[in-house]
Amino acid sequence: MMKILMSLIMSTAALTGAAVDISSPNGALRLNVDVDSAGTPVYSLDYKGKQLVAPGKLGLKADETAFTDGFRIVGVDTVTVDRTWEPVWGEYDKVRDHFRELALHLEADKPDRKLTIRFRVFDDGLGFRYELPVQDGPNYLTLRDEITEFNFTGDHKLYCIPGDYDTDEYLWSETSFSKLPEALGNYRRHSEAQRTGGNTIQTPMLMKTADPVYVNIHEAALDGYPAMLLDVDTENNSMSAHLVPDRLGVSAYLQMPFNTPWRTLIVSDDARDILSSQLVLNLNEPCKIEDTSWIKPMKFMGVWWEMFTGNQKTWAYSDDSLAKPGVTDYSKLKPNGRHPANTENVKKYIDFASENGIDGVLVEGWNEGWEDWASFRKNRQFLFDKPYPDFDVPALRDYAKEKGVKLIMHHETAANAADYELQLDRAFQYMKDNNYDAVKTGYVGAIIPRSEHHTSQWMVDHARHVIERAADYKIMVDSHEAPRPTGLCRTYPNWLAQESARGGEFESMGGNPPSHTCILPFTRLKGGPMDYTPGLFETRMSYYNEGKDSQAGTTLARQLALYLTMPSPMQMACDLPENYQRFPDAFQFIKDVPVDWSDSKYLEAEPNRYITVARRDKNSDNWFVGAITDENPRTATIDLSFLPKGEKFEATIYEDAPGAHWKDNPQAYRIRKVEVDSRKKLKQPLAAGGGAAIMLRKK
Amino acid sequence: MMKILMSLIMSTAALTGAAVDISSPNGALRLNVDVDSAGTPVYSLDYKGKQLVAPGKLGLKADETAFTDGFRIVGVDTVTVDRTWEPVWGEYDKVRDHFRELALHLEADKPDRKLTIRFRVFDDGLGFRYELPVQDGPNYLTLRDEITEFNFTGDHKLYCIPGDYDTDEYLWSETSFSKLPEALGNYRRHSEAQRTGGNTIQTPMLMKTADPVYVNIHEAALDGYPAMLLDVDTENNSMSAHLVPDRLGVSAYLQMPFNTPWRTLIVSDDARDILSSQLVLNLNEPCKIEDTSWIKPMKFMGVWWEMFTGNQKTWAYSDDSLAKPGVTDYSKLKPNGRHPANTENVKKYIDFASENGIDGVLVEGWNEGWEDWASFRKNRQFLFDKPYPDFDVPALRDYAKEKGVKLIMHHETAANAADYELQLDRAFQYMKDNNYDAVKTGYVGAIIPRSEHHTSQWMVDHARHVIERAADYKIMVDSHEAPRPTGLCRTYPNWLAQESARGGEFESMGGNPPSHTCILPFTRLKGGPMDYTPGLFETRMSYYNEGKDSQAGTTLARQLALYLTMPSPMQMACDLPENYQRFPDAFQFIKDVPVDWSDSKYLEAEPNRYITVARRDKNSDNWFVGAITDENPRTATIDLSFLPKGEKFEATIYEDAPGAHWKDNPQAYRIRKVEVDSRKKLKQPLAAGGGAAIMLRKK
Repeated sequence: MMKILMSLIMSTAALTGAAVDISSPNGALRLNVDVDSAGTPVYSLDYKGKQLVAPGKLGLKADETAFTDGFRIVGVDTVTVDRTWEPVWGEYDKVRDHFRELALHLEADKPDRKLTIRFRVFDDGLGFRYELPVQDGPNYLTLRDEITEFNFTGDHKLYCIPGDYDTDEYLWSETSFSKLPEALGNYRRHSEAQRTGGNTIQTPMLMKTADPVYVNIHEAALDGYPAMLLDVDTENNSMSAHLVPDRLGVSAYLQMPFNTPWRTLIVSDDARDILSSQLVLNLNEPCKIEDTSWIKPMKFMGVWWEMFTGNQKTWAYSDDSLAKPGVTDYSKLKPNGRHPANTENVKKYIDFASENGIDGVLVEGWNEGWEDWASFRKNRQFLFDKPYPDFDVPALRDYAKEKGVKLIMHHETAANAADYELQLDRAFQYMKDNNYDAVKTGYVGAIIPRSEHHTSQWMVDHARHVIERAADYKIMVDSHEAPRPTGLCRTYPNWLAQESARGGEFESMGGNPPSHTCILPFTRLKGGPMDYTPGLFETRMSYYNEGKDSQAGTTLARQLALYLTMPSPMQMACDLPENYQRFPDAFQFIKDVPVDWSDSKYLEAEPNRYITVARRDKNSDNWFVGAITDENPRTATIDLSFLPKGEKFEATIYEDAPGAHWKDNPQAYRIRKVEVDSRKKLKQPLAAGGGAAIMLRKK
Repeated sequence: MMKILMSLIMSTAALTGAAVDISSPNGALRLNVDVDSAGTPVYSLDYKGKQLVAPGKLGLKADETAFTDGFRIVGVDTVTVDRTWEPVWGEYDKVRDHFRELALHLEADKPDRKLTIRFRVFDDGLGFRYELPVQDGPNYLTLRDEITEFNFTGDHKLYCIPGDYDTDEYLWSETSFSKLPEALGNYRRHSEAQRTGGNTIQTPMLMKTADPVYVNIHEAALDGYPAMLLDVDTENNSMSAHLVPDRLGVSAYLQMPFNTPWRTLIVSDDARDILSSQLVLNLNEPCKIEDTSWIKPMKFMGVWWEMFTGNQKTWAYSDDSLAKPGVTDYSKLKPNGRHPANTENVKKYIDFASENGIDGVLVEGWNEGWEDWASFRKNRQFLFDKPYPDFDVPALRDYAKEKGVKLIMHHETAANAADYELQLDRAFQYMKDNNYDAVKTGYVGAIIPRSEHHTSQWMVDHARHVIERAADYKIMVDSHEAPRPTGLCRTYPNWLAQESARGGEFESMGGNPPSHTCILPFTRLKGGPMDYTPGLFETRMSYYNEGKDSQAGTTLARQLALYLTMPSPMQMACDLPENYQRFPDAFQFIKDVPVDWSDSKYLEAEPNRYITVARRDKNSDNWFVGAITDENPRTATIDLSFLPKGEKFEATIYEDAPGAHWKDNPQAYRIRKVEVDSRKKLKQPLAAGGGAAIMLRKK
């Protein structure tokens, strides 16, 4: 289906100064745009006949000039578009992109300024962006501020994390406008992070009104511009854009013509619609990579959990903390004997992956530089083509090839993005020379160049540079500590996954509460897949390390459900091979579950509470279902009416056993098989912090 | 000759707390080091029995700890070294490195600190550096300040340029401690530059005492550290180190062990010794490039002077100032027709170079990005593998090869060093693919990363990265607007030349006074060769452009002498081919003069006044002499006793004709031949702003 209806509804002259309305294709959303008495553009949004967003100002402020007031409307173009595109991978094999668009053309005098604000109203939300055409005045801007207001009409519930220029690895608060200061006050400061002051939060965030209406606020196609945070006015229930500045206080250096990212609101009174919305992807540019045949979704394991949890296992090869990469001869350093990224151990992972159909093996700590990486001081830290002496790259290349497994390289930069750029071509060429197709990148620490934050304009540009350069080498990327995703994976589908939230690794650092994975799909995942690293079978940290008494907020069965509720085309089985060997029947689900889908059905959803989702394998007729709950037990209702009528499926159900509980009895699971068809509604019990995973094999 | 005498003159225990003396091999210089009552290391220096440098403090201050006081001497090692090394190119084919060294080992308690200060006393001066060994305390330093004092004993004459973090392209002041504030006040602020406040000047600088004793202060082997400026205490006739900070106020991020660059004082009562001193090179590390056979000194011409002087000739291909490199399709831009970097014009330069034995042709303005390069705003400005549509890279590659001429690439970065690093491998590979062996780099504008200055630590590192990477590709580098040279060309002899001072290009922008090239060899050139771009035959700017009435501060004959007084292994013939065709007999000298030497004899010298130098061709028995004066006429005395006894030479003398004058009659020259031998003393008249160049061909 490819249908574009264009209609210029009004002439330029007739429209000057008048308010304009436009509705979503189904009429549920109605956008009003206008220019107020000061010549400031304003917009408001109604949902099902009720005001959702009260009039809010729009504009941009630069050192050279301000695009904030004095404007008159000189033209309005509208168009209706209905088209469908096919993602390289994802939750759906086809995505409908259906919206009505309104381009508001504005001009101002003294000084002369031109601005277009382009709005797209979808059935499931709104996107708008600023478009700066070539000006008669300054064509380079030193942008300080964006005046984009989101004004709401009540003391709505907010699901959010605190504003921070450098990290989004926080637990989520369920709070409200009026209670936000208290919630933000309760956050611990993240190490290495640059918390904003005031009542600032990050996007994507979720809001829930009393009606209820659910609203996700985020942005799409973040490119050449800093990330947007939100300053919250807790008294007036409103928010406004807060662009991440560089350390000199500038938000963006722009050349006209320039289009900002889209500001997005996903809106529905059904929480499931927030999860199924493809609005953010729809607002991104189509795929820019011509040949995508080399982009292959994958499951992988990794040499990493040993270091997070184990008895002093280290990424570093030596305990000599003063090694100088590029200077010291590592062959003469004393190895510490606790370095899992060694040839022999990696071969064991390759063997296990090969035997169990796992596509890839990630190895962290393989290259020189880890001895003092956490100093975050050096202009040169890691060398991306210098393996440690106990990591035999050619031998492992050959061994992995023989076993049909792909090794995944790790590029931890210690946040030295400048040095990574310097080494990038050599690093990627080294990967290709040794048969690596995928890389996990990392940016832990304070950014170098030191003028930058993790989400300032330069770093946003850096992230795109890396993805584009990787595509040149046919390399897939899973980026950690990068600017949070805004749907660019549509344009660059070699960007398989990102971290950009508090992931599974935190189960070894205090733990994630069960509710955590009940909010991420409503927020973080709207930008793109997350490398959350599910599959943790041994959840008690004392198992790995006697000195640790923390525990993951999950049952074993729930970990299987996460493969459905946290979908990613680059999906990890995070645990140690030995732990999978202890529970081979449960591990069978991880072996069976796909990582790419032709369709998805969100069956039940409430933010921070529960999610039930069904997905159809892209490469077979099998369906898979995942259901999770928060710290409260729950019975999920799994309506199988999505199955093709009249066909029988064998359901293999991986569920919490009676008595299972995330804290006291996490490994109590059972597996049962039942025959089902589309008329069946399964009543599926979920333990506290538990979940269920179901494979529906067509008979 | 290779002779190293080592002698530990004192035991550790015997020495604690006592002052230590060490003399230069010939005894002229005597260094005293001690620790004062506060435990601060101090040094002083006598020259020929008289105090030259009064006791001055030494130390470093970091956020983590201070290496400034509380020290005791725990050991002193001394050694005498006498060795000779052979430069790949330069003023001499052998360089003697002869010094006595004193390593002062210091320790302090509460907190524990260790510091070694290593002094080397040469017959022609002093070098010392700080060595930070591995500490029991912090091993990473956030360095704010270096406490290195240079305390003098009188209101000496100073030859200097103002402190600036971003440029050294200034005219020189001849002033004194007491008159410095007035001199600095008279400097115009350089565009794009970051002038320091206060009485700060740059190194290399020159001082002259009343005796007179001449002292050049600079540094050697600047690597991993910011450049050093000097804060001048005009009342106490003293100076102290002022490290260039980044824009966050930090001077250096250091990891121990770390050695700072050497702080250098070249000292003599004979001004000629300042010119002949190899002290700065001697304090640099030996050559790190194993195979140097591809490093070839060269003469070159260039498509560049047309843009500096011509009627609106441009580096840019189009007048569309809003072209977006990487986005705009240049093939569709309207060419402005005033773009000399086009295939046809470059072929003419290749023809001319080929016919006249000029090795290379530089082409500026060949690649996309010049339309708006001076905006200094964009995170991406230049593309180093994207020629303009009128510059046919493969055709010119083949044409140049056929004609036996090497094209030289131009990489103007608009100071976006980060973007240059990102593109570096591809840029160099593109050069090699198209038969380019040498590149002129440029950094005009404000540095990106925006945290940096041209001479802050990150940019110092950047410069070395570029040189090392270039060496990997067997590429020679001539860098403009880079951190000023400190002798690193010994270690990386592919670093043929740098600008790093106000060069010949300024003859088109107001002009350089005749004295300018009489001070540069005493100051700027002590760090390494300068791409000054001599060879200007048409010195009146009105010749090129009716609207311009400025003029170069030189006669034509003086321009020939500069090939001797401003020696460089990458030496330009800067003028247009048409101007050389107007004066073919004078151009013969440029064709004949070598760019690499086996020996050099400074015959006469006084800073800012005159220089007379003789050099022997590295590849023949011919000698060449250059003599220049300031704005006053002068008769140089050229004592030819350096010639081999009893052998006859034909001297071809290129000299100012009677009546020549830099301002009124710059092109009045004559050429005469005389037979000479080693007994001859030539009395050579030089016009105001004039000079003479002599070729001595062995008969």
